[in-house]
Formats: sequence, structure tokens, C-alpha cells
Amino acid sequence: MITVHGFSPSGNCHKLRLLLEQLGERYRWVEVDSSRGETRTAQFLALNPNGKVPVVDFGDGRTLTESNAILYYLADGSEFLPADLWQRAQALSWMNFEQYSHEPSIAVARFIAGWTPLDSPRRADLPALRERGHQALAVMERHLQERAWFTGERYGIADIALFAYTDVAAHGGIGLDGYPAIVSWLARVRATPRFVALPEPDAQAAQRIAESNRSL
Amino acid sequence: MITVHGFSPSGNCHKLRLLLEQLGERYRWVEVDSSRGETRTAQFLALNPNGKVPVVDFGDGRTLTESNAILYYLADGSEFLPADLWQRAQALSWMNFEQYSHEPSIAVARFIAGWTPLDSPRRADLPALRERGHQALAVMERHLQERAWFTGERYGIADIALFAYTDVAAHGGIGLDGYPAIVSWLARVRATPRFVALPEPDAQAAQRIAESNRSL
Repeated sequence: MITVHGFSPSGNCHKLRLLLEQLGERYRWVEVDSSRGETRTAQFLALNPNGKVPVVDFGDGRTLTESNAILYYLADGSEFLPADLWQRAQALSWMNFEQYSHEPSIAVARFIAGWTPLDSPRRADLPALRERGHQALAVMERHLQERAWFTGERYGIADIALFAYTDVAAHGGIGLDGYPAIVSWLARVRATPRFVALPEPDAQAAQRIAESNRSL
Repeated sequence: MITVHGFSPSGNCHKLRLLLEQLGERYRWVEVDSSRGETRTAQFLALNPNGKVPVVDFGDGRTLTESNAILYYLADGSEFLPADLWQRAQALSWMNFEQYSHEPSIAVARFIAGWTPLDSPRRADLPALRERGHQALAVMERHLQERAWFTGERYGIADIALFAYTDVAAHGGIGLDGYPAIVSWLARVRATPRFVALPEPDAQAAQRIAESNRSL
């Protein structure tokens, strides 16, 4: 059985939970709280020298890092990754977009809002992160005005990758009011069989998020 | 024949040139100077709404964005991408590492050093970018102490992806003195058949780079 080392509130980690649940695959989850330095211990760095979750341990000596590479590997042969080379190319393109142009603004704004102290100097970055987040959402909205999904013709791993942080963008102060096609797509993802949602932020994170977004 | 829309000094664009040369594939190159706003014109945004190079146009109505997704698509079936699923997973993992943990520090430090004015406020970011760049290099060094390549058993697209900016890390003030395994790997990449180097920075960029690194 595979083991996922992950931090439950992290969208990058939740991607794997969502795919594994939808594949009906059995797995073990080991909680690693990256907000409390648990990805920087010697033990964790032996698992992933880059000090990041998620990491998947296949239990036979093999481990794999990087959420989107893990999605691609686990979904091979399933309905969540088309066999067609050109559809795969587009799925990979969107997954690279997610890691380069979407996650570093939308996920980071959320992390700062909910998981750093209210007087953290990192909060000065929020306005620029929100602006870049809206740029990424505009690119997604344009795609979804013409297409139903990001993974070829059907729901799949590029949708899972992009859903994770888009669904909670408001935590970082990035509202979805101006993006009707994204809002419809989020609802379609939520309606897929065996869908599981990201857990709600804990009380401390929820309070910080409320405080961060009060003036917006 | 395919057309690459790219900015020659960009490592993300050079990745495609290197693979296409090594594949022996014919292609057309259209220069798009992203440092002068040419990726923000209406015409370019029609090609890639995300406003980034490279973009590949296949000449049959199909276009593809995101350098690493393009590498993966073009290399399919060639010696530069193993057929084995597990080796592919590791190549994709390293390519995600490149886009998330390597390029945003090493490439951005180089861009700021060479392609922004000497009084740009972005230069205040250089010390932090250099520190993160060294963290990424340490992860690569550790891998290369045990393995020859990043793409399974042989040279391939993950090596091409990581080579591009690692080879010119010094432009951003990130020296490779402490990384003997990386230095050897760079030499192995340079020795592959049909290798082509990134063009030298033009006179203005070279002068800015020299000025940036004078105090290091």
C-alpha cells in the first residue's frame, strides 16, 4: 500500500487525496505539518531533500516527489489521464501553468493569510500576489468559456491540479465573483464521483483569514 | 514545419532549441523579446493568453505552451524520453522541481541582473533569490553524487530542462564553485551530440551582469 506524506490543508497534498479517492485506491496518510517546520527535519529531508510535501512512498524503496508528477504517474491507465498524446500534452501544459503561474500567487496568498501571524512581514506581499492571482484566473476563465475541462475532453488530473487552490482562492483575498465559467467548472468538479473537499481551515487559520480579508 | 515563438536569451525558450536540434527536427524560430513587452501585445496574447514564451505553433491550428510540456510532447518516442513509466515519473518530478524550486530563483536572479536597469527596485530581491538558488543547487548536487542524469538512466528532457538556467546561474550571482557534481554534469550535457549553447548576453546585458556581480 502506498503512503502519502502530506499536510492536509495544503492543496498540493490534497490533489493526491482527491485522485486516490477517485481511483478507489487504498493508501495511508502521514500528516506532516509544513507550517511548523516538519518538512525541515533530518528525517523528512532524507525522504525529500527539497523539503516539501507531498511525497509518496510506494513501500518498495521507491519514493516520488512533486504533486503533479505524482498525479501523472498514479493516473496512468485510468480515466483521469487520456491516452492520446496531444490531450496529455495539453494536460501537462495546464499543470505547468498551475505550478508556475497559479500556485505561487493563489496558494501563497492563502498560506500567508491563514498560516502566518497577523504581523508577519510577508503580508506586505499580499496585494501583488492577489493581482497575479487574478491574472491566472483570467487565463482559466477564457479557456473555460470554450471548454468544459482542462484535461482533454473529460475531467482528469489537470482539473484536479487546478481545482485544489482555485476553490479556496478567496482565503487569500482573491474572490471569484468575476469568473462565472470558473465557478461553473468548480461545481462540475465537486459533482464528480467520490469527490472529497479540502478540509476547512482550523480555528486559528480561519480567524486570520477573516482578519486578512476584512478590508477587501 | 513547427514554429517556435521564443526569446533567444531565455533558458525556457532555449530548452526547445536544444531538443529540436538534438532531434534533428526542422523548425522556424520567431524572436519575441519578452524584456521589451512583446509578449503583452494583443497579437501575442491571442497566441498565449498567459503572455509567456515559448509557444509552439504546429502549423495545423494547434499551439502548445509551457516549455516542459512542449519538451515532453516533442520527445515522445525519442531517446530523450524513456518509455518506462517510472523513469518518466522521475523525469516529470525533476521538471516540476525545475519550474517551481529552481527557475523562479536562478532564472529570475539572472533576468534581474542582466535585463533590468541597474537602479531597478527588483534588484533588492537578489540576495533572497541567490539564497534560494543555492538551495536548489544543493538538491541537484546530492542527486548527481549518485546518478549521472535526471532523466532515468540516460540524458534526456529533464537534463535539458535543468541545464538551461543552471549553466548560466553565475549571471545572477549564483556561483557553481561548491558543486563539483553539477559542474561535471554540465560538461556531460555539453558533450552530447548536436549540443547548442545559449547565446551569450548582448553587450548591455553583459555589462549589467558584470556590474551586478562586482561586489560578490
